[in-house]
Amino acid sequence: MAKITFGIDIGGTNIECGLVSDERIIWRSTRKTEAHLGNEHVMAIVAELVKLGLENTGITSDQIAGVGVGMPGLVDAERGISVLSSNLHFQDYPVADRLTALSGLPVCIENDVKMYVYGEATHGAGQGFGHVLGLTVGTGLASALVMHGNLYSGAGFAGEIGHIPLDGVTQPCNCGLVGCMETIVSATGMARQATQALEQGQISILASKRGHLRGHLTARDVSDAYDQQDPLAVSIMNYTGRTLGIVLSYLYPMLHPDIIIVGGGAAKAGERLLAPAREALRERLLPIYHDTLRLVKAERDEDAGILGSAAWASKQFS
Amino acid sequence: MAKITFGIDIGGTNIECGLVSDERIIWRSTRKTEAHLGNEHVMAIVAELVKLGLENTGITSDQIAGVGVGMPGLVDAERGISVLSSNLHFQDYPVADRLTALSGLPVCIENDVKMYVYGEATHGAGQGFGHVLGLTVGTGLASALVMHGNLYSGAGFAGEIGHIPLDGVTQPCNCGLVGCMETIVSATGMARQATQALEQGQISILASKRGHLRGHLTARDVSDAYDQQDPLAVSIMNYTGRTLGIVLSYLYPMLHPDIIIVGGGAAKAGERLLAPAREALRERLLPIYHDTLRLVKAERDEDAGILGSAAWASKQFS
Repeated sequence: MAKITFGIDIGGTNIECGLVSDERIIWRSTRKTEAHLGNEHVMAIVAELVKLGLENTGITSDQIAGVGVGMPGLVDAERGISVLSSNLHFQDYPVADRLTALSGLPVCIENDVKMYVYGEATHGAGQGFGHVLGLTVGTGLASALVMHGNLYSGAGFAGEIGHIPLDGVTQPCNCGLVGCMETIVSATGMARQATQALEQGQISILASKRGHLRGHLTARDVSDAYDQQDPLAVSIMNYTGRTLGIVLSYLYPMLHPDIIIVGGGAAKAGERLLAPAREALRERLLPIYHDTLRLVKAERDEDAGILGSAAWASKQFS
Repeated sequence: MAKITFGIDIGGTNIECGLVSDERIIWRSTRKTEAHLGNEHVMAIVAELVKLGLENTGITSDQIAGVGVGMPGLVDAERGISVLSSNLHFQDYPVADRLTALSGLPVCIENDVKMYVYGEATHGAGQGFGHVLGLTVGTGLASALVMHGNLYSGAGFAGEIGHIPLDGVTQPCNCGLVGCMETIVSATGMARQATQALEQGQISILASKRGHLRGHLTARDVSDAYDQQDPLAVSIMNYTGRTLGIVLSYLYPMLHPDIIIVGGGAAKAGERLLAPAREALRERLLPIYHDTLRLVKAERDEDAGILGSAAWASKQFS
């Protein structure tokens, strides 16, 4: 019998839950996270989703190998504790134990970016590659490294590349530092670049966007304007892509990954972002790296979190 | 009975051989590498050293668990092949098989920087730490990452941080790129900075060094002049240290090592180099990293290569 696991992604807005059998999502559902209603409330929603999955599919508890949960922030995977998730208002909370008590199933937890990249490594663009470096470019920027099916953890806070400081960038970051990579390479960073340029009087079709009039330009607006050859949008996309490539050129000689996968909301820009990134990276890499350089878009963007958490649970409870 | 292994470090100038029992070097010897006399010649010297070690200690072949060899360049550890070592003129040469044929002992090989850092991780400053990032700052600059007793390998060329390109640095590197980190952070880089500054007419006690008159200023000269508060030497040391710290600030959020160890010839400068490096690194790191930031000098500099290779052999042939 195939091993069946739940893969769950607790995000700031939604909780995504999937039932994964034979490496396919056979059932999925979503609920609002409503983190402001408290930790117990969030746990209850997850437990409800698990119950619903079993009811809707007719699968019984004893057919389930385990539940994998990805969540933002710092996770103590060994003890199943959310050490700190500012987003979700969790602090030193025993997520795994609590969910096991509510569902009667074995539960493991991990950081959500790790689970997303694990999903891409096992079911997406990283399949068949040994060392997979994955980035999520969304509101912020983070990364994870999968090494032949194992997660790189470091001393606990590994993968926080959004806060690599860049020379010549003066934008303050939410973290308190100045010039962090994610002030440029993120959906927020791209939108901010556009808004600031318009405020400085630059001419662009972005000025006529409803989003701009409301003060809410998005990375998507920039991407659309790029497709209309808007010079400001082209300039922002190239600069953002090249900045990504430059930071990757710092990491590449240390890590020598077999493949780099870029996912998350802003990655929808695809080659608009990745082509300049690849160019900047290649210019700055030793020739020995050129032949095997792979910088690609995520393939399972919507499903990677669920697939990764489910695969991770499958590995933990095998 | 304690496990006894040979640890061998084949360098561009010397071959260092040690017999390690119970984690201590109980016998050691050195020969010139004489790589220009051919691969077979180098292999014969290694085999002689092994024979000598057994004769001098009265230990017999059947008491030896195995031989660990560290050598420069790209190594295919699994097949025991030196894929490319420009220094030693090795290319696709079956080092492990050849040495086994000559010595009758099991042999494993690895990259020398990896073995050095493995030695520091297991017997030096890294003892007791999970994720150890080690750098060797000598003629060039390279690094390795030990993760709870395992070596990070990536796709093959991991750890080549000497060739991370730096913004604003225009010095050509031997590799063909421009502004690589090792054009600044290396013994060669420090000596070059001093020589160029003197050529540009800067005032310094380094101008009176015999080395300078012969055109051979060294990093050691810079370090000595630093101790006499020579402004040029202080400036070079600070700039070199800060450059090291800046590059480490690129790697740290990705890797989050428990400790960073700096070894190799130029690391003899110790805190002269590490204090400005630590300062620059700390300024650029997220506060969550500050409490556990450890940037220290290697403790077993002369022995780390032997101890690392021996410990690695002990792990391979256990």
